[in-house]
Order: sequence, then structure tokens, then C-alpha cells
Amino acid sequence: MTTSLRSTLDFLLHDWLQATSLTARQRFADHSRGTFDAVLDTCERIAREKYAPFNRTVDTEEPQFDGERVILPQCTHDARQAYAESGMLGAAQDYELGGMQLPYVVESAANAFFGVASISIGSNLLTTGNANAILVHGTPAQQQVFAANEFNGRWAGTMCLSEPQAGSSLSDIATRAEPDGADHADDPLGPRYRLRGNKMWISSGEHELTENIVHLVLAKIPGPDGKPVPGTRGISLFIVPKKLVGTDGQLTGERNDVALAGLNHKLGWRGTTNTLLNFGEGKYPVRGGPGAIGYLVGKPGEGLKCMFHMMNEARIAIGMAATMLGLAGYYASLDYAKTRLQGRPILGGSAGGAGAGGKDASAPQVPLIAHADIKRMLLAQKSYCEGALALNLYCARLVDEGRTGEGQAAADARLLLEMLTPIAKSWPSENCLEANSLAIQIHGGYGYTRDFPVEQYWRDNRLNMIHEGTHGIQAADLLGRKVVMQDGAGLKLLAETIAASMQRARRHAQLAPWADQLAVALQDVLAATQSAWSTGDPQEALANAVPYMQAFGHMVLAWIWLDVSASVLERDPDPKDAANAGRMAAARYFFHYELPRIAPWLAVAARRDMTCAQVAPEMF
Amino acid sequence: MTTSLRSTLDFLLHDWLQATSLTARQRFADHSRGTFDAVLDTCERIAREKYAPFNRTVDTEEPQFDGERVILPQCTHDARQAYAESGMLGAAQDYELGGMQLPYVVESAANAFFGVASISIGSNLLTTGNANAILVHGTPAQQQVFAANEFNGRWAGTMCLSEPQAGSSLSDIATRAEPDGADHADDPLGPRYRLRGNKMWISSGEHELTENIVHLVLAKIPGPDGKPVPGTRGISLFIVPKKLVGTDGQLTGERNDVALAGLNHKLGWRGTTNTLLNFGEGKYPVRGGPGAIGYLVGKPGEGLKCMFHMMNEARIAIGMAATMLGLAGYYASLDYAKTRLQGRPILGGSAGGAGAGGKDASAPQVPLIAHADIKRMLLAQKSYCEGALALNLYCARLVDEGRTGEGQAAADARLLLEMLTPIAKSWPSENCLEANSLAIQIHGGYGYTRDFPVEQYWRDNRLNMIHEGTHGIQAADLLGRKVVMQDGAGLKLLAETIAASMQRARRHAQLAPWADQLAVALQDVLAATQSAWSTGDPQEALANAVPYMQAFGHMVLAWIWLDVSASVLERDPDPKDAANAGRMAAARYFFHYELPRIAPWLAVAARRDMTCAQVAPEMF
Repeated sequence: MTTSLRSTLDFLLHDWLQATSLTARQRFADHSRGTFDAVLDTCERIAREKYAPFNRTVDTEEPQFDGERVILPQCTHDARQAYAESGMLGAAQDYELGGMQLPYVVESAANAFFGVASISIGSNLLTTGNANAILVHGTPAQQQVFAANEFNGRWAGTMCLSEPQAGSSLSDIATRAEPDGADHADDPLGPRYRLRGNKMWISSGEHELTENIVHLVLAKIPGPDGKPVPGTRGISLFIVPKKLVGTDGQLTGERNDVALAGLNHKLGWRGTTNTLLNFGEGKYPVRGGPGAIGYLVGKPGEGLKCMFHMMNEARIAIGMAATMLGLAGYYASLDYAKTRLQGRPILGGSAGGAGAGGKDASAPQVPLIAHADIKRMLLAQKSYCEGALALNLYCARLVDEGRTGEGQAAADARLLLEMLTPIAKSWPSENCLEANSLAIQIHGGYGYTRDFPVEQYWRDNRLNMIHEGTHGIQAADLLGRKVVMQDGAGLKLLAETIAASMQRARRHAQLAPWADQLAVALQDVLAATQSAWSTGDPQEALANAVPYMQAFGHMVLAWIWLDVSASVLERDPDPKDAANAGRMAAARYFFHYELPRIAPWLAVAARRDMTCAQVAPEMF
Repeated sequence: MTTSLRSTLDFLLHDWLQATSLTARQRFADHSRGTFDAVLDTCERIAREKYAPFNRTVDTEEPQFDGERVILPQCTHDARQAYAESGMLGAAQDYELGGMQLPYVVESAANAFFGVASISIGSNLLTTGNANAILVHGTPAQQQVFAANEFNGRWAGTMCLSEPQAGSSLSDIATRAEPDGADHADDPLGPRYRLRGNKMWISSGEHELTENIVHLVLAKIPGPDGKPVPGTRGISLFIVPKKLVGTDGQLTGERNDVALAGLNHKLGWRGTTNTLLNFGEGKYPVRGGPGAIGYLVGKPGEGLKCMFHMMNEARIAIGMAATMLGLAGYYASLDYAKTRLQGRPILGGSAGGAGAGGKDASAPQVPLIAHADIKRMLLAQKSYCEGALALNLYCARLVDEGRTGEGQAAADARLLLEMLTPIAKSWPSENCLEANSLAIQIHGGYGYTRDFPVEQYWRDNRLNMIHEGTHGIQAADLLGRKVVMQDGAGLKLLAETIAASMQRARRHAQLAPWADQLAVALQDVLAATQSAWSTGDPQEALANAVPYMQAFGHMVLAWIWLDVSASVLERDPDPKDAANAGRMAAARYFFHYELPRIAPWLAVAARRDMTCAQVAPEMF
């Protein structure tokens, strides 16, 4: 095929986002286009050798629990080892921590190869996210003992937020943490507590892939009255290792009281173990007391804040996962459409012309890709998935800017990232899932069988609208918080950024109509935002938060495609290169077929339509 | 819950479609509301006892082939037996054939219970469809030997159209049928041929559920030059029984040369065996010659015509299957939303009011259904699935009218049915699948596990956009054939029928705005139809056939909801009854959230947008 993942990444990273310019900054001074390329080469190779061949294996050989151990296929062990040895777990970290000081945007692009090869065989982003949270909020000892041993690949990490009775509603968690003895404050690994409770949906919660597992656990410390503080203010964060360790980072030989209570059997994403964990329920009594031993991270009551520090990156990572599954389906269906012979093209010509609308049955069959509707389904996929990839890399670039940019530019990047995060997570989750459905459709009956990979991509991708904050949670975050925060500063900054792209695009005559179309869409989004909040009643404003987010997302993607198009035309004004012509076609598809869809979504938000909110339960 | 499937069916069948009025016709004279109710009661009971409890079983215990026999779970045998004993296989048939002379609309409604309980455990519609085709095109002996023994439950039937290299493109089938000896024309079971070839995607192609299996097979009889006639004109239809039978309907003891070549392993719909069959490849040599023995049905070269005779009913049945899966998910997620406690409602009040937008963390959690976004997802499901059910029953009612109505009314019903069939099949396949996705979303993480039924509904439903003519095939049928047939007579009739509904609706002040909205939508559809064909070039007209069909379908569903609403208000003007209020809410949802979506779909069709059609393969 003309466009490979690598060529698309190269275009977006370098031609569009100019990632190499980051090497002018001190943190990245040792890097160059050459070192970036080498990282991508390595990841592409490991993904091809250790991930892609086993994507179906991890789907069919689900994790099993024999009562003592979780059994995973050998390929999962091999993939984990190859990934850890590549150094990617700590790629963005300081040299002192054994990292490469790689820009986050390059790290994200490199990780894309693993996502497209097998999304569920690895769960490394959790380990990185866990270690990053400890790095920001933990004590030096916690950083050295726990984070460093996650980055170097010895141990893996988890995030333990949800509980069986508390999914989206984290304020309702019931896991308790009580001080462990009189000397609890003096432990060199941090204030020591005993935790008791159950944690649900814990990915990689139990396995034998690594020597140890570092659980980051949200729990409530009882107040003076012995009761947990209601709401999110009562939540604290703890490191709870599966096996206890000393300050030297060596296992003490003691198993902590963290027990697997059950494996979740999922629709997809089966390469990653998903667990219900019991903390401190007595299966592995430790050091003579009840409860699992945990070490406080950060201050009491600030657990959610600590955890959410990592949320932007986690949510971009989910958006990227959804995108890579979408691209995997796109590549598979493109390959199928080029090779599978089926049917004949409709004969053209005006009405009354001989044979118009008919088909020449004696002619040989043509490849599927000769049919207009197949092309429509391919172009839709390309438009969704390459657009989503661009958006996610753009956000990753903002992470770098926020960390290493100067003054106002860095502050703006952080604000813009806050603003875009719910879109970077939700939009690919919804639209790249639809792309996977189109990939099945192109395969016809074969796509519905497990002999082809597309049905698995579709199943795997269905998770992304659920985890790391459901679609509804993202929408409430967008309309309830992000567009109104700091008196609308984030939204204003986004509007200005979009305006700059429109200005850039208007230099090319053929982009002017798209810029005009986007300008109207932006105004419509801004107007709908105002109108939704015009009564100041959150029940009315947020009643249609999801349709609002769908419209907002489409407007953002149109902006991304406009900016990408400008970048194409600046290099290749009347695209001769097929890949560039393809990018323009995908952009055109988005402006012709997708952007016009925002009107009905915005309309219900703008008029605060209470059709749904006012239905009484007994009417369903 | 307020609305059950039964109460919804009763409303649609009787209050809306006035099915009981059919009893005034001679064919249905023995029937009454009482007999209709009794059939529904029976089916509801069998579905509850023999289908619903085993829906997950047939998903996890997939059909196995031991080299000789296909092994299915016992529950599949029990469900088949209960269904056959109910008489539903021949419910609509003449008394002489052992049928009940039940109206098709009542048969369809009664079958709904099985669809919602377990769509894949039975494949009875194939047997009925097979027998119906023989009834219409077969000789009296074929009818008596084959069709009658399918209706009475002794034997099952299949439809063998596709081949590995010919899915949507039936003109490319390669199965050959050659006259079987000099006396081949004299066989009492019909002209006898020997068939050789492979048939793909054959549902229930091999099993031990019944004494025999009657395959209806499309094959080509070679012309004088020994070569098959190209195109669909060369296709003939054959009865090929798995085991040979005599004119007395008894097995002769000879196994015919039809061999299972493989089971397809599917994403869903796993209760129904799906097979690749070899005809006449020598595994079971029969009567000393090569090839499987088959009996010609109808005339040579008219095979596709014979097969397509049953297509309207088969496609309505697929639409109904998609609908019932959608409703199954709706009921499951409604139940979950009413019982699962999660989160707290947003506090209302105007901006600045104490606590506006906040949540009272000390209050107990509320059921999911208290949240506006959950209600939105429930109302969308209700609107899609109950609307689709209404459309499918309306089409079933047209089948009855076309068969038993008088003169022009019957002719109109047949024409309108032709017109609506691609929508009745495609619209539920797409939108009730989306409903299933919303049902998963309401369940959150639990919906992604196999501990809840909704993920299976979603997998099962993905088939419906593929089988019995893909989405693309339906769209080409709609825009390429149905709207232009007989100089647009079908489209004109539909427009008149919709206009009559609008007139009916305008008697109610609250429906006037919806009638206005629908009038505009109808005009937009008509204008887009004209515009798409204005250059007379099918390549341009059909380039956007699928978006056109999506818009057409939404317009049709809006019409259905408007007519249903008028029916509600005629009985309950300011709905006091919760179920009626719910129907009005679902209709309002459709007009507020769904109908406005048609504009961008129509726009690309109307302007003959060639964005997709013109992309060269190398640009992807």
C-alpha cells in the first residue's frame, strides 16, 4: 500500500508537527531525526516480531487462574520482555532514571506500532502511568524503590480506582486505610497503612510476568469519628506492592495480602488480565496484622488529585489505542479490498446510453476496491483514523510543549491540552470503532468470521468508550468543566488556535471553502456552548452533553484535517504524490461527509432539549 | 417495566395495525383476537422456557464437527422440537398443508418472542422460506414430498446461494448441474441433475436436528457449448436433499453426495451452524455416478427469480431479527439502569444558587436511570427498536394485504412492500446494532463482560448488515431500482401514503410541527432522488447510495413514528397511560434527535459527490 503506518507517522511527526525542532531544547539536545527514527525502527520491529503474530493467540487463550497463579500464553511473556528490554517503559524519563529523555510525541508515535500489532498483549502504559504518578507525588525513596523498578522493567504497575459498587462514581469507594501501628509514620517507604477493600476492573492486577506488581490504590482514611470522609475529599493514594520490598528494592520474601478474587471475562482486549482484587481480606496474612500493607503517596485526602495528574496522558493513550485499532482494521480491509475479486463496476454513461447501469457479466470480476461504496468505506476509515492519529499526536506534542516550552507558550499548551483531552479520548473511541465496523463490512461474510482479524479489532475497540472515564464522563468534563473553566479561557484559546489554522489554510485557494465551513462550525459550537449555559442551570446545560461532545469532536477533527491539508499543500501544491493526494481526499471526505453532521447534535444542546431528561422511568 | 414486548406487540398489532380486521377476510375467517392471542401466548411461553435460558449456552458451546456429525447442544434440539411442535413452521400455510392460515403479520409478531429470547438457537425462518419457495415454484410432487415435510417439522431446509468466490456477486457462481442420464426428465420428483460445486455461508447446512435436510441450491446448467451461461440468466434452482427420498416422502436409505467441508467460526449468531458444503465431490458417492442428485425447481435459467420470490419475506425477517436483538438489549439495559445504583444527580438551580452543578456526596447513590445521559441512551434504543418493530410489522401487514386484499389495494400493498423492503432490512440492521452498543454503554464495564447478555446481542446483531444482501446491496436496490421502477410509481405511492399519515397527524395540534418537519424531509428525499439521477449516469447516481439509504430510512422511520403517535393520541389525547406517554417521548426523540440527521446524507447524494468514487486505489 502507498501509505504505511510508518509513512503516516513520519509525515505527521516531521512534516506536520516538526518534532525534530524539539531537539533545539536542552532536554532533547542529544536527540536528532536519526535517534527518533531509530526508536521507531526498533518499535516497528519488535511489534512485527513479538506482537502482531500473537494477536489472535491472546484472544483465544484467555488468562486462566489455577487458584494460585494467573496463566498467560508464552507470547505474552515474550512480548513483555522485548518491550521492557527496548527501554520504552522509561523512554521519556530522565537519563538519571535510566530513561532516554525522548519527547513524549515521539514516544507516543513509537508506541503506535504496538497498538496496531496487538493492543491487548501488553499493558505497559499502566506501568508507565503508575511510575509517573509516583515520580510526581512520591517521596525520593518511593521514586527510587518503586518508580525506578517499573521504568527498568523489573516490576509492573496497576491503577486501582474502581470498586464493584463504585465505577464512574469514585466518591463512593469503600476501601479503608488505617495507620499501621504507632510507628506508621516513620517507615522509610512512606507513612504505612493497612488497607481493606475490593478493587474492580484492575488491568494486569495479577500475573507472573514480572517479579513484583506495584498497585496504586485509592482508599479512604477514616476521620476522627472513625468514619470515612464522604465524597472525593476523603480519598488518599497508596502504593501497595504485591510482594513487600525493602529500601534496597529487593523483595523481603513476604507476600502482601493482595488476593485475586476473580478474573473478568471480556468481550475483547483479552490479552490483558482484568481482575477483581481483594486487599487485606486475610488470604495472605502479613506481618501479623489484618489488612494489606500500603504506603501513602502525597498528602492524605489528595489521592484523586494525584491520580488525575496522570489522567491527560492516560486518556490520550486510550484515544491512541482506539486509533490504532481503527488503523489496524483500515489496513486489513484495504488489503482485502485490493485482493478480493467480487462483482463488476456499474457501466457509466448517460441515460439511454447502451448498457448504462448494467454490468458486463462476461467480463472478469474486479477487486472490491473498484466499487464506489467500498471506496467510501475505506475513505471514511482513513479519514477517521488518520485524523484521530493526527489529533492524538498533536496532543502529545502539547505535552512536550507544556513541559519544555517557555513561559506563556508552555502555559497555553497545558491549557489547550486540558481543553482537548476529552476529545482526544472520546472521539477516536467512538469513530474508530465505527471504522472497525466498516472494515468488517468490506470483508462481507468473511469479516464476520474469526478467520480474519477485523472482528477482533471491533470487539477490542468497544472497550475504549468505557474505560478511563466513559463517554458520558468525558462529555460532562467537556461541557461541565473544560469549556467554562477560567471564564472560558480554554475555549477561547482553542478558538484562536483554530483561527490561526484557518488563516494558514486560506493561503491555498482550494482550502478556502473548508476554512469557511470550519469558521461557521466553530461559531456554531461557541454559540451552542453559550446557549446551553444561558439559564445557568447545570441540569439543562448538561442534558445533552454527549451530543454536544460529538459535535465538538467533529469540529476539532475538521480543524485537524484543515491544518494537515495546509501542511500538505505547502509541500506539494497540486499533490502529485499519491499519499498526499490521499490525505487531501480524506480531508475532503471529512468536510463533505462528516462536518455537516454537527448541526443536529448542536441543536439539542443549544436549545437545552429536555426530551430525554424529562422521561419518567415508568415510561420506558 | 411498563412496556413489555407483549404489550408493545399488542399495541402495534391491534391498536395501530388493526390486525383483527383481517378476520373479515375469507382466508382468516376462523380467526379472532382470541386465536391471535393464543398463538402469541404459546410462542411467548416456548421462548421463555426453551429459548431464553439457553442463549448464552449456544454462544459458548459452538457447533462442533467430529468428522461425521455436527454436534449441537441438547438445548438446540429441545428448542427445535418445541418450535416444530407448536406448528409455527407452517403457521401461515393452508389448512390442507397442515397450516393455521394465520396472517403473516401475526406470525411475524409471534416469532418476535423467539428473536428476543435467542436469535441463533433456531434457524426456522430458513426452513419456512425454503418450503415457501418450493410451494410457489415446485411441482405438486415436490410440494408434497419436500415442502410439506418441512412445514410439519420432520425436515429442515437451507438456502444455498453464495460460493467462496461469489458472495454478493451471484452471477459468478460456478456450481454446475448436468442432466442425470437419459431418463433424467422423467423423475417423479422433477427433472434430475447431478450437481458439483461448493456453497459457502450455508446456515444449518449440516446437523442432526432433523431426519433430513432439504437444500435449495443455485447452480448453472451448461449450455450447448458445454460452458455455463454467464451472468444471472444461467442460474437454475434445485432441490438437493441430504438423504434421498421416495415419492412417498420416506427416506430411501441412500445418503446424497452433500458433504460438510467446514464450519465457519463466527463473531456471533453461534447457535446456528454455518457451513461450507461440497456438492458432488465424491465423499458420499450415490447411485453409481459422480455428483449430488438434485431436482430442478421451476424452469431452467429462472433460478434467481424463484429464489428472489421469497426475498421480501426473508429481508423483513432479517430486519425483524435485528430489531429483536435491539429490543433484547433495550430491555436488559433498562432493567440494569433501574436497579444499579451509581452516582448522584446534578443539583439544579440557576447559576450562583447554592450548590448548583455540584453533587451532595453524603446523599445515597441513585439508580442509573436518574441520570439524563442514561435516559438519552434508553430513549434512543426505544426509539430505534420500537420504531423498527413497527416498520417491520407494517411491512408484514402489507404481505397480508398483497395476498388477501382486493384489486388495487392488493397491488398497492405489493408495490409499497417492494419499495420498503430495503429499508425494513437495512434500517434495523444498522440502528438496532447501535442500540445494542448503547445497551453496553449503560452497563459500563459490566457490559463489556460476558457475565451480562448485552455484548452477545451486539455481536449477534453485527451479522444483519451482511447477510441476505449487504448494506451496499440494499442501497443499490433502493436507489438503483426501487425508486425508479415503473417510472417512480413506488416512490409516488410511498409519498402519498406518507401524506395520508401527515393528514391524520395534523388533527392533533401537538403533531403538526412533526408533520411539517416530515413534509420537508420527504420533499428533500424526493428532490435528492431526482438530483442523483439528473445526469442519468448510474456511476454518479449510485456513488452515494448508502448515505441516501440512511436518509431515506430515517425519513421512513419518522413517518412510522408520526403515524404511531397519531394512533396513540386518537385513543389517549393527553397521554395519561405511562406506556403511551413513553411512545410519545420516543417519537419526540426521533423528531428532535434523529430526523435532522438526514441533511448531510442527502446532500452528498443530491450533488452526486464523487469524493469517494474518484479516489485512486494507490491513494489509500
